[in-house]
Amino acid sequence: MTNECVPVLNSGLRGFTVATTKVSDVNGAKGKLIYRGYPAKDLAGTASFEEVVYLLLYERLPMDEELIAFKDVLIKERHIPDVIIQTLKATPPEALPMDVLQSAIAMFGHHDADAKEHSHEAAQRISVRLIAKTATVVAAWERIRNGKAPVAPSDSLGHAANFLYMISGETPDDELTSFFDAALILHAEHSFNASTFSARQVASTRAHMYSAIAAAVGSLSGALHGGANTRVMQMLLEIGSVDKVEDYVRNILESGGKIMGLGHAVYQVDDPRAHILAPMSKKMGERAGDTKWYDLSKELEAKGKKAFKEKKGKDIFVNVDFYSASLYYYMGIPVDLFTPVFAVARVAGWAAHVLEEQFAGAAPKPVLYRPESEYVGDYCGPDECKFIPLDERAGGNG
Amino acid sequence: MTNECVPVLNSGLRGFTVATTKVSDVNGAKGKLIYRGYPAKDLAGTASFEEVVYLLLYERLPMDEELIAFKDVLIKERHIPDVIIQTLKATPPEALPMDVLQSAIAMFGHHDADAKEHSHEAAQRISVRLIAKTATVVAAWERIRNGKAPVAPSDSLGHAANFLYMISGETPDDELTSFFDAALILHAEHSFNASTFSARQVASTRAHMYSAIAAAVGSLSGALHGGANTRVMQMLLEIGSVDKVEDYVRNILESGGKIMGLGHAVYQVDDPRAHILAPMSKKMGERAGDTKWYDLSKELEAKGKKAFKEKKGKDIFVNVDFYSASLYYYMGIPVDLFTPVFAVARVAGWAAHVLEEQFAGAAPKPVLYRPESEYVGDYCGPDECKFIPLDERAGGNG
Repeated sequence: MTNECVPVLNSGLRGFTVATTKVSDVNGAKGKLIYRGYPAKDLAGTASFEEVVYLLLYERLPMDEELIAFKDVLIKERHIPDVIIQTLKATPPEALPMDVLQSAIAMFGHHDADAKEHSHEAAQRISVRLIAKTATVVAAWERIRNGKAPVAPSDSLGHAANFLYMISGETPDDELTSFFDAALILHAEHSFNASTFSARQVASTRAHMYSAIAAAVGSLSGALHGGANTRVMQMLLEIGSVDKVEDYVRNILESGGKIMGLGHAVYQVDDPRAHILAPMSKKMGERAGDTKWYDLSKELEAKGKKAFKEKKGKDIFVNVDFYSASLYYYMGIPVDLFTPVFAVARVAGWAAHVLEEQFAGAAPKPVLYRPESEYVGDYCGPDECKFIPLDERAGGNG
Repeated sequence: MTNECVPVLNSGLRGFTVATTKVSDVNGAKGKLIYRGYPAKDLAGTASFEEVVYLLLYERLPMDEELIAFKDVLIKERHIPDVIIQTLKATPPEALPMDVLQSAIAMFGHHDADAKEHSHEAAQRISVRLIAKTATVVAAWERIRNGKAPVAPSDSLGHAANFLYMISGETPDDELTSFFDAALILHAEHSFNASTFSARQVASTRAHMYSAIAAAVGSLSGALHGGANTRVMQMLLEIGSVDKVEDYVRNILESGGKIMGLGHAVYQVDDPRAHILAPMSKKMGERAGDTKWYDLSKELEAKGKKAFKEKKGKDIFVNVDFYSASLYYYMGIPVDLFTPVFAVARVAGWAAHVLEEQFAGAAPKPVLYRPESEYVGDYCGPDECKFIPLDERAGGNG
């Protein structure tokens, strides 16, 4: 894709190709998502999250013994410094989980000498640390804000199972673990989405991995980005039952609103991740003896797509957030933790992109992202404003 | 400026206009810097930093009584929560000041209910808070990491004087205050530089002001961005004396290196800020009875420009970092605090840009920055890689 003669002013660079990457490919027209050569749909449910992290960071799937060693490193890196636990305990319980995650990730850098070494090896070590510790700190905050003691990470559980264990204190069964593992894999990477672009943009100044990923967490926290999965569940809870779907859809579209979880900046077909998440949501509903939230989602997808087509004359498609919402809800993850759980997965992709930005850029030489803006200030007409000292200033100023 | 037919792939969007703005204008060809209509050179030395902050946030200069009220709010917002002071005391003294600033800014959000309110008014309140508290936390960390008790902010000093007071415990005289005030003004804003672009990019997802500015701090920390002023001073210290300049310039250019503080992404003439900072550096040297660092800088500017022209056949120009380095050094600011001091000033511009991005965008409707990338992965040739389960994987994999 070339950018020749594409106007982009004030369009958020939508549809505009800024860089080459080897990390992943999102084919919006075909609904394909590729992680370093491998379709994400082939990885979810067959590989483990740890294998996918290895693939993203080291550009190939691990051999058996490599994976064992890698899992071991991840386990060893799960602990977080006691001063950070103490800080969490002194943090107001109403603090937003994404804000707590952002500050914690920045704080991790205070305790790591690798943050001062600008090298590929140091950045790779930080990547592994951050992927391990992000899960721990999200779970610890969930416990602490509810007045519970944090659950120390298990040395015997995989990444997915250990996270659920640190949240609830209970070891999840194999099916639950495999579903959550698949969900983590499907959320691990998605090319130049807003938060990844933030991470790369910060990394392009040669800031270290912690700084860049703290920035990405900030970006993911936004309602228009990672905050969307929380908003999908809030919508489902607001609708409340399948028979209310039709009214909800009509009202929201008539009032010019959007149905959360429908529509995507890149996909022009259903998000391939949604097709894997939906049946897991259904199965989790069946396990709970109540498929209400899955059924409601299904009905909302059908009715929402139909009404959108009638109103706008074009199709709209489900995105990743549409079925991850009910899936996470069935898993017992608190609604306002959905976005931090997104971060627990996406930190792998962010790290891979920071590594690429800093140490394997396809550019002729590393350059920082520094675009131009067009000044449209008209404070003093076409001229510069003439500065009037404070004591002579009266009756308005230009 | 239009972007028609401009190729930008892997060029960091250099020279590419992404958005309109009313905050400031950088005219790289003419060497002009305009803050909401007013030339920065007219503001530095005549207005106070508080007046310029008011201008940036509220789009006009304040009347006398407005400025008094605004200064009062800034003074009231100077304190930082005790839990953050306690966290600083528990932070390893070797933590990088920019990393400490990033985590502290994210933590400020934990204590502010306005972080949960997406409104222009709430964001303006946060802006003022952040501008006040950034100075306090930078100074507090400087004290704490050196084993000293933080100096509580003064209620009677202006922003510039109070910062120097919180660093040293001594009230600066009027000349020192006015020089530092001017330096803050000159560093307050510079259109879509890397850190401001990071702030806007994060804000475009509707993340709140704290998240966006924590991201900007990460971006500014990079060696290619805000870290440059520290590197200028390190270079001056390494050269050590005026008579070593000629050798240094020859050696660095022969080895393909760069002279720090020369060259800029946008300016094609001398950075207008440098021409204001240079005489202040000279005067501070005279006050100290030794103009060595100023003289060395002057010599390096002359010799560096000449040698660059001879070697490359084109001109190179001084940027803002070139003279701010010796100026801050004469002021007794520790070298590794130069970049945090940059942030103490630039937080005003970041805040103005976040306000514009979220509440006064010139775009038809708010869109988040979400560019495209071109996938160049060739892990399995032109095809997708075929996933091989772990237990069948051996002897390498595609």
